[in-house]
Amino acid sequence: MSEVKSLQSIWFSEQSGRVCIIDQRHLPHRTIIEEIASLEQMCTAIREMHLRGAPLIGVAAAYGMYLACRESRQAGERNTLAEAAKLLLATRPTAVNLAWAVERQLNGLQGMDDPIQRTAAALSTAREIETEDIERCRRIGEWGVHLIEEIYKKKRDTVNVLTHCNAGWLACVRHGTATAPVYEARRRGIALHVWVDETRPRNQGARLTAWELAQAGVSHTVIVDNAGGHLMQHGRVDLVVVGSDRTTRTGDVANKIGTYLKALAARDNGVPFYVALPSSTIDWSLRDGIAEIPIEERNAEEVSFVRGALKGTQEDAEVRILPEGSPAANYAFDVTPARLVTGLITERGICPATEQGIAELFS
Amino acid sequence: MSEVKSLQSIWFSEQSGRVCIIDQRHLPHRTIIEEIASLEQMCTAIREMHLRGAPLIGVAAAYGMYLACRESRQAGERNTLAEAAKLLLATRPTAVNLAWAVERQLNGLQGMDDPIQRTAAALSTAREIETEDIERCRRIGEWGVHLIEEIYKKKRDTVNVLTHCNAGWLACVRHGTATAPVYEARRRGIALHVWVDETRPRNQGARLTAWELAQAGVSHTVIVDNAGGHLMQHGRVDLVVVGSDRTTRTGDVANKIGTYLKALAARDNGVPFYVALPSSTIDWSLRDGIAEIPIEERNAEEVSFVRGALKGTQEDAEVRILPEGSPAANYAFDVTPARLVTGLITERGICPATEQGIAELFS
Repeated sequence: MSEVKSLQSIWFSEQSGRVCIIDQRHLPHRTIIEEIASLEQMCTAIREMHLRGAPLIGVAAAYGMYLACRESRQAGERNTLAEAAKLLLATRPTAVNLAWAVERQLNGLQGMDDPIQRTAAALSTAREIETEDIERCRRIGEWGVHLIEEIYKKKRDTVNVLTHCNAGWLACVRHGTATAPVYEARRRGIALHVWVDETRPRNQGARLTAWELAQAGVSHTVIVDNAGGHLMQHGRVDLVVVGSDRTTRTGDVANKIGTYLKALAARDNGVPFYVALPSSTIDWSLRDGIAEIPIEERNAEEVSFVRGALKGTQEDAEVRILPEGSPAANYAFDVTPARLVTGLITERGICPATEQGIAELFS
Repeated sequence: MSEVKSLQSIWFSEQSGRVCIIDQRHLPHRTIIEEIASLEQMCTAIREMHLRGAPLIGVAAAYGMYLACRESRQAGERNTLAEAAKLLLATRPTAVNLAWAVERQLNGLQGMDDPIQRTAAALSTAREIETEDIERCRRIGEWGVHLIEEIYKKKRDTVNVLTHCNAGWLACVRHGTATAPVYEARRRGIALHVWVDETRPRNQGARLTAWELAQAGVSHTVIVDNAGGHLMQHGRVDLVVVGSDRTTRTGDVANKIGTYLKALAARDNGVPFYVALPSSTIDWSLRDGIAEIPIEERNAEEVSFVRGALKGTQEDAEVRILPEGSPAANYAFDVTPARLVTGLITERGICPATEQGIAELFS
């Protein structure tokens, strides 16, 4: 078994020619590294959510195409790249980054017939996509850290950042988006502490963000999603930073359900509320987030049952918290209107969450 | 074992002379009636939270004093009512209703030396306190149902009410406070549906409110605490009604953590936000809820662990959702400022959440 590559969610092992990932289904109770040696394994890993997060899925798919090339070389088979692409695209049909990464691989490999050359090219593209993601997140961190530094200069005491869900390196390759400014602040020696919303129903905050921050030695405290407003009322939050699944060109932000409630509390208490995002999540075709962004309704069992480690063990178990007959509903995202967002932190810089602000940064 | 007394949390059994309660620790997966025959058993039931909710604790304590009278009669022992009172007061030291009910019993029994007469008087007072609570809640229901009726008349379709935590009959004797208008609307045949916030960390919504509503045949859906804002943005909530643990004379409302976030969302979307409360929860000495109401910080394990029925069984189990090393914080209540409250529903009527409004109703 491979060693964990510190603070990175996916990496290529030169030695074995395999792709290593953290199987996130077992976090935070067990850290299991999965070595992926075939296209089929990669498809399973994406489909069964051994990994998740839009940027990470894109990188994984790019490596999936590399594995497909390598297999067809080893087996001496006829080129079936189109088939490999189809298999990957079917794993998470709505993941934009996945389709984009597969497309980029297909374009780059077009006309290449030599299997050795093709495999090398596919690996090179996958590593490029990986590097680009790391670089984008690193830049988000460099822009965003100024916000934390400013607060620290004024306050001269620990800066308290609140975040919702997981927009960390477990969703990307390194750094993460919402967490990138936090990791950069930590690197610069700024005293900081993160309030981590547990983020029901899937508890990505409690399970993933808390684990990530612990790995990086960042001081943090997990709270229930209900607690953020109370903390803000009492001056215990200096800054809110969250990620985004999709952002309209006017600055409305679709993110994990509950983000909107934190934005309201931030506004009510004068706490700056920032959204960190790679520009790839901006949907230039949309103007009104609440009216136009469809909100996925997921399986109600994610609400009825809670998964964790059975008390006193590391063993996975699920408990039912609802009466047998009571129905539950499970809305995955909500939309925070731009008027509640102080600014967007992107790889190009920070801009107001307005059509003009975004257009100027990306003109 | 006794039969469940329909839609009531505590009742006196003439036949056995015992006090029956629903042992709420096992809800919603098992409905266990506990027959309480001694002061000691009642102290345990209150201390170990077989029952909870301020009004219910008061009624239970009053019955505890009756059981103490009966025991001293049976055992032919010397009067130890003062001792009984002390034992009851120690079970939940901060419960105002408990102290009030014990005091009322002591006052009523003063100077009574005949054990038979004393036991009868104590039973009569306990039943009085029980009846008064039922009556107060019934009146809250009668006032509050007008709000639902008004919406129904305009909308001519199912009225959607959202509630947080459990301010139902499991916290009182019958009807509940926040749920009283809902049960009264149901009795009057108004089509309605309740969104039940699960209410982390203790999940009183998912465990208790959902169970209560199911018992009464009220249509409901459990949602995570994160979801209410999204539902309000999309016009799927017509009215929010919550309870209150403590209300200032200016109308600030301390209630279960997360209430404030729902009030913000209601305000942002023009949804009426009402608080149902017996006037006994008004603290006339307080003016500024956020500054003056101390917020209890409870055991962090309530956040780290989630209790429920192990999947596929009725067996209680707890799962850990946090990484081993990550700390959690557990704030039990928050304060909703009066400016976000549309009105207070009390046993005397509905009033604005302002010092003047409250003073006029209770002049």
